Amino acid sequence: MPDPRILLGPGPSMADPRVLRAMSTPLLGQFDPEFTAIMNDVMELTRFAFETGNERAFPVSGTGRAALEAAITSIVEPGDRVIVGECGRFGLLLIEIAERCGAAVSAVRGAWGSVLDPDPIAAELRRAPTKLVAIVHGETSTGVLQPLEAIARVTHEHGALLMADCVVTLGGCEVAVDRWGVDVAVAGAQKCLSCPSGLSPLTYNARAEDAMRRRKTRIVSNYLDLGQLADYWSPARFNHHTAPTAMVYGLREALRAFHDEGRAARFTRHRLHGDALRAGLDALGLTIFGKEPAERRLAFLTPVVVPEGVDELRVRRRLIEDFGIEIGAAFGQLQGRIWRIGTMGYSASRRNVLLCLAALEHVLRGEGFRTHPSAGVDAARAHYRAAGV
Amino acid sequence: MPDPRILLGPGPSMADPRVLRAMSTPLLGQFDPEFTAIMNDVMELTRFAFETGNERAFPVSGTGRAALEAAITSIVEPGDRVIVGECGRFGLLLIEIAERCGAAVSAVRGAWGSVLDPDPIAAELRRAPTKLVAIVHGETSTGVLQPLEAIARVTHEHGALLMADCVVTLGGCEVAVDRWGVDVAVAGAQKCLSCPSGLSPLTYNARAEDAMRRRKTRIVSNYLDLGQLADYWSPARFNHHTAPTAMVYGLREALRAFHDEGRAARFTRHRLHGDALRAGLDALGLTIFGKEPAERRLAFLTPVVVPEGVDELRVRRRLIEDFGIEIGAAFGQLQGRIWRIGTMGYSASRRNVLLCLAALEHVLRGEGFRTHPSAGVDAARAHYRAAGV
Repeated sequence: MPDPRILLGPGPSMADPRVLRAMSTPLLGQFDPEFTAIMNDVMELTRFAFETGNERAFPVSGTGRAALEAAITSIVEPGDRVIVGECGRFGLLLIEIAERCGAAVSAVRGAWGSVLDPDPIAAELRRAPTKLVAIVHGETSTGVLQPLEAIARVTHEHGALLMADCVVTLGGCEVAVDRWGVDVAVAGAQKCLSCPSGLSPLTYNARAEDAMRRRKTRIVSNYLDLGQLADYWSPARFNHHTAPTAMVYGLREALRAFHDEGRAARFTRHRLHGDALRAGLDALGLTIFGKEPAERRLAFLTPVVVPEGVDELRVRRRLIEDFGIEIGAAFGQLQGRIWRIGTMGYSASRRNVLLCLAALEHVLRGEGFRTHPSAGVDAARAHYRAAGV
Repeated sequence: MPDPRILLGPGPSMADPRVLRAMSTPLLGQFDPEFTAIMNDVMELTRFAFETGNERAFPVSGTGRAALEAAITSIVEPGDRVIVGECGRFGLLLIEIAERCGAAVSAVRGAWGSVLDPDPIAAELRRAPTKLVAIVHGETSTGVLQPLEAIARVTHEHGALLMADCVVTLGGCEVAVDRWGVDVAVAGAQKCLSCPSGLSPLTYNARAEDAMRRRKTRIVSNYLDLGQLADYWSPARFNHHTAPTAMVYGLREALRAFHDEGRAARFTRHRLHGDALRAGLDALGLTIFGKEPAERRLAFLTPVVVPEGVDELRVRRRLIEDFGIEIGAAFGQLQGRIWRIGTMGYSASRRNVLLCLAALEHVLRGEGFRTHPSAGVDAARAHYRAAGV
């Protein structure tokens, strides 16, 4: 039994205890009427989470990356043109997945830490017929939140489909698939849903399904063939893989917890604790990475610039060894330059924010970084007080 | 919370309660030293389970089908020749997966309910250069156990690799990867390991790894790219997907339970309960499907011929509704003709065998099938008594 941790990295977040309890429920066979009823619950709750009326709304039996690959490999045929918006690590992943599927990928790139304008995407769409535009809704590597409506509009004007990587956003902020015109949306379990990873919800509309039906070539993957998965997650109950029963129990409970809390309350909670954290970090004299305004940043994932003279890795090690608190490192061009502090799902609480700020102050002082004693905790407490918490 | 079930189908088996408890352990970050130590345990226990010294022995984050596809798609390049032995549903699956990967598949087919001779496979190997021979070790659809040594020998004589689908066999009978000369072996969690499905152990040797390294084309899948997964499950800790933490806890505990019980004791237990069940079924006047001798049948999965005049589906429904006992239906050409009764992992117990026989007797009598009252239970009890249990 490992030491308990306070997980404030970019994921996994702490699993909700009610999710963990659900995961230890004894198993059912996958065609047991009690189990197929649970599958129906999961689909209905997935529609709630994505704010969609799509018939197709079910989880892929793998991590977020599996669900992203399922969507791309099921829609794209070798030689199809795909435009990927890239301004972070997970944009690079979408490019890699699409290239492996044999797509002709056009990358529209932006600076890490910024969002992408629709204009260069529109320009790229005008250049040649395009099957799919893929974009990251919440870029976990930089903390930016990409607005999707304008990109959806221009994508549809050119007859393409829009796919959004909502791995980090679902359950933490609005993901209004139908209203925004997103054709395919893919999520993860271990971020704002506070479920262990291993089962990843997605949804797609009739346009995306039609594109899959009109394929001329067979999907190279059996495991990630969305057509077969949709038939399994349907009244036909077409036999595919053996359902990961414990994960299905866990995901249902995580989605129920989201539903019970309600969208507005949940998004407000994520905003509140992220803002309190940032107030505290600011009072400690730390700088938040990136220049985008608040509405274009993730409320629940805060990128913090590592101050000059501070050992990035040693700070994380001391936080975990002395205080049992995990915060995140960074990828690629940002590696060693920023930390990423997540306040997602069950991790997003007043206590965790205050513990993190208190521990960070001590560790930074050990690195020779000067702060006013208790400034971080005091500022966060003041933020909570002002919010009436 | 669903009604508890006695799971005696072809999988999932009942999860070991110690596995379910482990799955509700709070999460760790995937690069936390406590978590990487758990990953190391899983690899060491995977080597124990497969009786191998292979460096590569780790789970794929998906169900057995994902691990089978990972192995095939990572080894086979489009146009490579693959020979698949097929005498059941899961042979057909291997053919489908290999075809989707772009392989030129030669199927060597046998009657469902029989094992395959090495001779026609050898003849097929002589016809043209072959990259991979893929064969099902335990065919869950028919209950046959395929001997692998002779096929490994002939495969290697022709410079090909042998892959074995051990999804149903690992943890239930000998899977001696190194001694038999199996180059790639793939297992499942939810059969004789009694863990929920969702994480599937595999192992491959240096010859298979070398074949992956010598590829000229990129693996089409990112999620199932064994090279990347091996780098993640290695001291390099190459960042790939976010580990399905709860499943890793569960699989470790399932493999530990196997290790604690010991190979010989575990295989003897599976044989004992299977034999007791079959003694009881025989005394009830039922016929076991297939003509292979006992050593070529799965001890822990018993295919039973549905008697004339008995409604196959109604029997299963009554077993589950009245007695909470799940037994399995069949696939393809055997659909409606046989039931499949699994006594795997934690499900393999004296109590479950006797409950199943008692319930089945009542349900069959309701279908007008004549049996001597208590004949099944009495025969199984006599079998246990003779075995000193």
